[in-house]
Amino acid sequence: MSEQSGDENCLAWAARDPSGVLSPYKFNRRELDADDISLRITHCGVCYADVVWTKNRHGDSKYPLVPGHEIVGTVKEVGSNVHRFKIGDHVGVGTYVNSCRECDYCNEGLEIHCEKGSVFTFNGIDVDGTTTKGGYSSHIVAHERYCYKIPDNYPLASAAPLLCAGITVYNPMIHHKMNQPGKSLGVIGLGGLGHMAVKFGKAFGLHVTVFSTSASKQEEALNVLRADKFVISSDKQQMEASVKSLDFIIDTASGDHAFDPYMALLKTRGTLVLVGFPSEVKFHPASLNLGSKTVSGSLTGGTKATQEMLDFCGANKIYPEIEEIPIQYINEALERLVKKDVKYRFVINIENSLK
Amino acid sequence: MSEQSGDENCLAWAARDPSGVLSPYKFNRRELDADDISLRITHCGVCYADVVWTKNRHGDSKYPLVPGHEIVGTVKEVGSNVHRFKIGDHVGVGTYVNSCRECDYCNEGLEIHCEKGSVFTFNGIDVDGTTTKGGYSSHIVAHERYCYKIPDNYPLASAAPLLCAGITVYNPMIHHKMNQPGKSLGVIGLGGLGHMAVKFGKAFGLHVTVFSTSASKQEEALNVLRADKFVISSDKQQMEASVKSLDFIIDTASGDHAFDPYMALLKTRGTLVLVGFPSEVKFHPASLNLGSKTVSGSLTGGTKATQEMLDFCGANKIYPEIEEIPIQYINEALERLVKKDVKYRFVINIENSLK
Repeated sequence: MSEQSGDENCLAWAARDPSGVLSPYKFNRRELDADDISLRITHCGVCYADVVWTKNRHGDSKYPLVPGHEIVGTVKEVGSNVHRFKIGDHVGVGTYVNSCRECDYCNEGLEIHCEKGSVFTFNGIDVDGTTTKGGYSSHIVAHERYCYKIPDNYPLASAAPLLCAGITVYNPMIHHKMNQPGKSLGVIGLGGLGHMAVKFGKAFGLHVTVFSTSASKQEEALNVLRADKFVISSDKQQMEASVKSLDFIIDTASGDHAFDPYMALLKTRGTLVLVGFPSEVKFHPASLNLGSKTVSGSLTGGTKATQEMLDFCGANKIYPEIEEIPIQYINEALERLVKKDVKYRFVINIENSLK
Repeated sequence: MSEQSGDENCLAWAARDPSGVLSPYKFNRRELDADDISLRITHCGVCYADVVWTKNRHGDSKYPLVPGHEIVGTVKEVGSNVHRFKIGDHVGVGTYVNSCRECDYCNEGLEIHCEKGSVFTFNGIDVDGTTTKGGYSSHIVAHERYCYKIPDNYPLASAAPLLCAGITVYNPMIHHKMNQPGKSLGVIGLGGLGHMAVKFGKAFGLHVTVFSTSASKQEEALNVLRADKFVISSDKQQMEASVKSLDFIIDTASGDHAFDPYMALLKTRGTLVLVGFPSEVKFHPASLNLGSKTVSGSLTGGTKATQEMLDFCGANKIYPEIEEIPIQYINEALERLVKKDVKYRFVINIENSLK
């Protein structure tokens, strides 16, 4: 497929090299297959993955690279077999846009674990052999299976962060039964993922404690996000006062940190779920053996859980805290994201700024 | 209580100092309370814990120290309230002999997790304030709640290792649902615990792969223990051939080893249960996050699971592989245990040798 030939159908912003600097870019999206929809993108959330791949941190980035996998918009065209969506519907696309649709995991709605590998929304290989390009763009074409209905009246800008940050915490919380009212939840880290974990925890009826290295987050954690308790994780006395008090911990911190002090906070048979990517995870075995404790990892969720999560947010009026930006601000936004200077998720207003 | 006063009622072998050398010793067991039974000990298994505490490896050993927490014998006396046992019954005592009997964990039959702490069978504090003394002795007095019925016709010598090694692997296998026929189990390490995990795995109908550093164990693993597959864990090709093949792993190795290569062998949502005590447990977070995998620890089991395990072994004719020894051989046996030179559990024939 020729790119930049003059007849490109899609506006975008792309990184051209590992500097990660984004600039305007045009390319062609493929034509719709029978099961595809085409989505006019209105908003796209800014995820730390966008930093990772625009800067080629994993060494596998294919440039020009159009990031963005928290995509929301309105349906502008549907393929002949599409039955779940019609033109005008509010629809989301998350972190993957394809999978084999035949293996046990796909059949269970766990496409992210597809045996042949799911196709990521950007920097993956699309059905036509081209590199997938993400949501920092004017439209996207995807198989309807990997598209989600945004609940009626749910603000489109707010829906965007649900497609990665939201499902990444919701999915393990459900899988590990963290939705039992009255149980206690610890949330490590208060960024895009952590603030959603607090909101889900409160919606599930849990007693939520936020652990942060930064005292400056206390006021917001308690008064804006409605956490029940705030603990400065470097304060040994505060940590010791919480020993054996938590049924669950969800660890969203990607910076390196000790795990043993948090394991001590879990009750017998308690579970810590890791959703961040620190450089290593290290325990003393007694942290696991004494009290028969569990550490689990998780990586976003399948299509079934993603739609459930969106419906749950609609029904329970759960909205991410966002800072809306124009696409022209994206390079500054990515810099601020690296510095953790965002409350709590940037969302690009694509429809009003990408022209 | 005076010790070594001449009217002691219990013969034993004890370590006197951190050399860990055991020698004959006499002391007084307490009188029976209403809920107690007194057990004439016939056999006692030799657990690695006996090495740890006779040699004061944790710095908390109280000498003279009588080890042994895989205790089997016949009831010689019962208290006035005892209703589960009668004189002559075959009974076992495991790793703990008391707990609060009031907390949620005790009420669920998970006494090992008692909120006030369970009382260990040796080197703990008994109801009369004395230090508990283990099964390298002629009799023991314990509350009936912490005593187990040995199934009819089950050889007493073979029953001994079930009280620690057996329950330590059975309990997490049941808790993590490793008893689903047709699933695949990996067993790391082939000592006292590992060989029982193989036997339970086969009884549950699992496909069992043994991982060992020692090629010399292959023949026994396959032909004596009836494992389905044997993998030399240092052989990269063999390990790679097993990637994503296992539903569960039970890790009985107490020596230090890498965890990432084993995590790679688990299928999506697979679980590794740690029952050993290496010096640390270290992962790359991707080993947990990609495939949403789980690592859990476990530490023996409660009274409910212990009785179930004994009954299961009786019904399914599961017998540990043992080497029976006289008490006079115990110092050599402990040395051989440290060198892993035992197939697969020493059991002291107390009734025939302790006089």
